[in-house]
Amino acid sequence: MSSSSSIDQPNVITCKAMVAWEAGKDLVMEEVEVSPPQPQEIRVKVICTSLCRTDITAWESQAIFPRIFGHEASGIVESVGEGVTEFVKGDHVLTVFTGECKTCKHCESKKSNMCQVLGLERRGVMHSDQGTRFSVKGKPVYHYCAVSSFSEYTVVHSGCAVKVSQQAPLEKICLLSCGVAAGLGAAWNVADISKGSIVVIFGLGTVGLAVAQGAKLRGASQIIGVDINPEKYEKAKCFGVTDFLNPNEYNEPIQQVIKRISGGGADYSFECIGNTGMVTTALQSCCDGWGLTVTLGVPKTNPEIASHYSAFLSGKTLKGSLFGGWKPKSDLPSLVNKYMNREIQVDEFITHNLPFEDINKAFTLMREGKCLRCVIHMPN
Amino acid sequence: MSSSSSIDQPNVITCKAMVAWEAGKDLVMEEVEVSPPQPQEIRVKVICTSLCRTDITAWESQAIFPRIFGHEASGIVESVGEGVTEFVKGDHVLTVFTGECKTCKHCESKKSNMCQVLGLERRGVMHSDQGTRFSVKGKPVYHYCAVSSFSEYTVVHSGCAVKVSQQAPLEKICLLSCGVAAGLGAAWNVADISKGSIVVIFGLGTVGLAVAQGAKLRGASQIIGVDINPEKYEKAKCFGVTDFLNPNEYNEPIQQVIKRISGGGADYSFECIGNTGMVTTALQSCCDGWGLTVTLGVPKTNPEIASHYSAFLSGKTLKGSLFGGWKPKSDLPSLVNKYMNREIQVDEFITHNLPFEDINKAFTLMREGKCLRCVIHMPN
Repeated sequence: MSSSSSIDQPNVITCKAMVAWEAGKDLVMEEVEVSPPQPQEIRVKVICTSLCRTDITAWESQAIFPRIFGHEASGIVESVGEGVTEFVKGDHVLTVFTGECKTCKHCESKKSNMCQVLGLERRGVMHSDQGTRFSVKGKPVYHYCAVSSFSEYTVVHSGCAVKVSQQAPLEKICLLSCGVAAGLGAAWNVADISKGSIVVIFGLGTVGLAVAQGAKLRGASQIIGVDINPEKYEKAKCFGVTDFLNPNEYNEPIQQVIKRISGGGADYSFECIGNTGMVTTALQSCCDGWGLTVTLGVPKTNPEIASHYSAFLSGKTLKGSLFGGWKPKSDLPSLVNKYMNREIQVDEFITHNLPFEDINKAFTLMREGKCLRCVIHMPN
Repeated sequence: MSSSSSIDQPNVITCKAMVAWEAGKDLVMEEVEVSPPQPQEIRVKVICTSLCRTDITAWESQAIFPRIFGHEASGIVESVGEGVTEFVKGDHVLTVFTGECKTCKHCESKKSNMCQVLGLERRGVMHSDQGTRFSVKGKPVYHYCAVSSFSEYTVVHSGCAVKVSQQAPLEKICLLSCGVAAGLGAAWNVADISKGSIVVIFGLGTVGLAVAQGAKLRGASQIIGVDINPEKYEKAKCFGVTDFLNPNEYNEPIQQVIKRISGGGADYSFECIGNTGMVTTALQSCCDGWGLTVTLGVPKTNPEIASHYSAFLSGKTLKGSLFGGWKPKSDLPSLVNKYMNREIQVDEFITHNLPFEDINKAFTLMREGKCLRCVIHMPN
């Protein structure tokens, strides 16, 4: 990294970033220019970033390139833009893909985390001026999910970063910036799982297993994990999964098996794969009357969720979850504290640690279903 | 009616019933034999029965004939079968299409009205022996929805009738046996509408207008009614509808109009038509974060509900409602009392009163959208 910044007036930083030039093609390490933070923005030195399935889905399927992916990350504030009072240089932060402005109707409501100002940003540009803060040899490079953490330095809106305890290990808590928090929140905030209940989880990746952990901590009596990869089962046990079902091992639809072993259907089902067909299966796996299906995944194909009306007529509910219902600024610091107090497991999700230059290996591991979380460590 | 019954041992009753011999063909008045009630059953002299859209849908589309339709009704117990302790001859009752056994897991739970013993019965036979209690010249005639009230006498399971105050007018409260209760319950029990909220209702028939009444009584600030029949509007005002939208009068999708006039979408939307495509529209008419869509209708065609996953990702919920979440025995008597205390409107839903022999006129009125409820009065 080279910089000509002074403390008062940050300048352009030139540093290494892993740039995606085309859909599905290996990321390429490039020298990128990172602009100074504009008003209400902060520039963050990324410390660790873990790969989330959503990065891969977007890299495989979206049309906005060149782009810097990465959104599950921890870092240290390097400089702040005009008007930023919440952060100072040196603050430890988690980045978040959905922000919290604290002033819109949704931020003011207890019932929503769908900030109307800094909510899910899909176009790859900054909120304030619809521009980018990255360039390679003068050519703009797009952001991803308001974060773009596959870069040594990134610029984010101050509403898309959360100050956390300096004591918390940044190489672990980056997982709370997306996947693990999303799963725990789906179990606690969205489903509000009650003691003694029966839970079924479709997809035992990080999000699904974080749901399992959330269910276990709420005292669920049976946690059924569904995955076609039998290698997931050992790890799943650590997070509370009591029954493992591989749909490929049954000649009947898996919802029938679930109904049988749960005595009529689960109280709660969670779709954590990103497969809309599986949402239908998840609904069918729930019991009548109060069965609740929570959909967390972002589908890679077929965006339509479909279900026979009778599933609803019999009293079932289908609910979506974005980031587990957490308001990032209001809620993440306490989640970090829960980790520090050993009330929740985070380290156990980390199956691999890789240096920044090996980030394409992380992509391969995840696409092959060989990892939960790969933590990518930036150069010092 | 001719009967050779004694008090202790009821015998077959021969009486008039309106029998459906074929799908979509006029009902025919026939002399039917009505068997004595079997154990746990009661035989009811029907006093009034009102026509509900579901009768028509089943009559148009189902395959079980000959059949006696009708399920929204009031009557007086004529005789009781073995083991019935809850009812005696002379009790006033409402019939219900979904029962309450009081002993199954769902009846014992506060969260469900989906009785697992006496729930929605579609096959047209009695619970105890899978047989019928009606015949015409020895040929069995099927039941409908566990009630079959288009007959001077009918036999129902004792779990599918609710004892009500003898002071309540049977020619009015029959509406609380299905449609009006379903709408009020959807607003109160299922959606739990809060004060000051914005509500949109698709379909301003009896159920939709009962939702409006429920919303008004909860203090909703805006109640948007959507219907393609402009004749509905005047009546809708009585029940609290503040804004009327006719989709045929707009060049843009109605959900966009709703989002505009509600400042971002309704807090609650209700599909009361029985059109699965409209469920999707109802979801799209809700706000992000906490928008809740309740589906009440039974579709005449296309049973699949479909929605883009992003509706759920943005925090919306889709929930079904059967009979407004009411447990019939536990809850209907207090609803009747609310009517007696003038806390809820029921009379205003009755647009027509017809004698039993004119029941086919009621079918025509409802199919042409000319009525809310036609109350059919049985001969004395």
